[in-house]
Amino acid sequence: MSDSGFQDFYPDEFAHCYGCGRLNEHGFQLKTHWEGDETVTRFTPRAEHTAMKGYVYGGLIASLIDCHGTGSAAGAAYRAAGLQPGEGPAQRYVTASLKVDYLKPTPLGPELVIRGKIREIKGRKAIVDAELSADGVVTARGEIIAVHVPDSMSAKP
Amino acid sequence: MSDSGFQDFYPDEFAHCYGCGRLNEHGFQLKTHWEGDETVTRFTPRAEHTAMKGYVYGGLIASLIDCHGTGSAAGAAYRAAGLQPGEGPAQRYVTASLKVDYLKPTPLGPELVIRGKIREIKGRKAIVDAELSADGVVTARGEIIAVHVPDSMSAKP
Repeated sequence: MSDSGFQDFYPDEFAHCYGCGRLNEHGFQLKTHWEGDETVTRFTPRAEHTAMKGYVYGGLIASLIDCHGTGSAAGAAYRAAGLQPGEGPAQRYVTASLKVDYLKPTPLGPELVIRGKIREIKGRKAIVDAELSADGVVTARGEIIAVHVPDSMSAKP
Repeated sequence: MSDSGFQDFYPDEFAHCYGCGRLNEHGFQLKTHWEGDETVTRFTPRAEHTAMKGYVYGGLIASLIDCHGTGSAAGAAYRAAGLQPGEGPAQRYVTASLKVDYLKPTPLGPELVIRGKIREIKGRKAIVDAELSADGVVTARGEIIAVHVPDSMSAKP
């Protein structure tokens, strides 16, 4: 399996996201790829990403699910078009709506694994269901509604 | 108006949250307080908190709404008990569910203002509605369901 993710094919002007931009040196540089029909993102939180001591703070979990969702949507758009990531027009989605259910505390330490299923991809819209787990235990579930990036969001100077 | 927020009254073991812990030197140290019947949190994103260039990334917006929600719940719990923050038992909530609707891109630069309304506080549960604005324009709406911290989440060693 390659280390590259869907995010590696974002055009430069769309690759500065703190969560998943390969050009954001301070950010998480998340990478999402297919494992069968699931999309998968892995991330090991930093020591400071605390809620209570020993647990991951909810904002990080929301951030991971968010960028996993937009990345998954990009991957799904390539697949729906019968293309490999990087082929054809660039695919970049933004989040319209994010929902996260925190099922139980997420331990701080282990790598977190976010798995996504594409519920719908149609026109400019994608819906992705996500599960976040630590040490094999699902601790949060998310739903992301993402929309293909509109022309009006082209980069500001 | 004092600079202190509800979060300043969290017991030390609950004050390490990356979003709102006064003891997390890397985090945002968010502070939430009353303005009339609304709870208010203010935060100016860092330059790296980018989505597309010029805009705030969605994960930060989710994080701000999340910690604003738990802080608001703590404030509401004090008020419901007829107490000032810091009086009586410590109030600390965690997020059970978070929903964020991204209405329009949030410009990166101005201070962000998150305003909350307590929709419900009953037993261990609180529901908070939040609006996030930049330069007076509402760019995101959130709903947080928070629960009073259970004994089982006492700090890990």
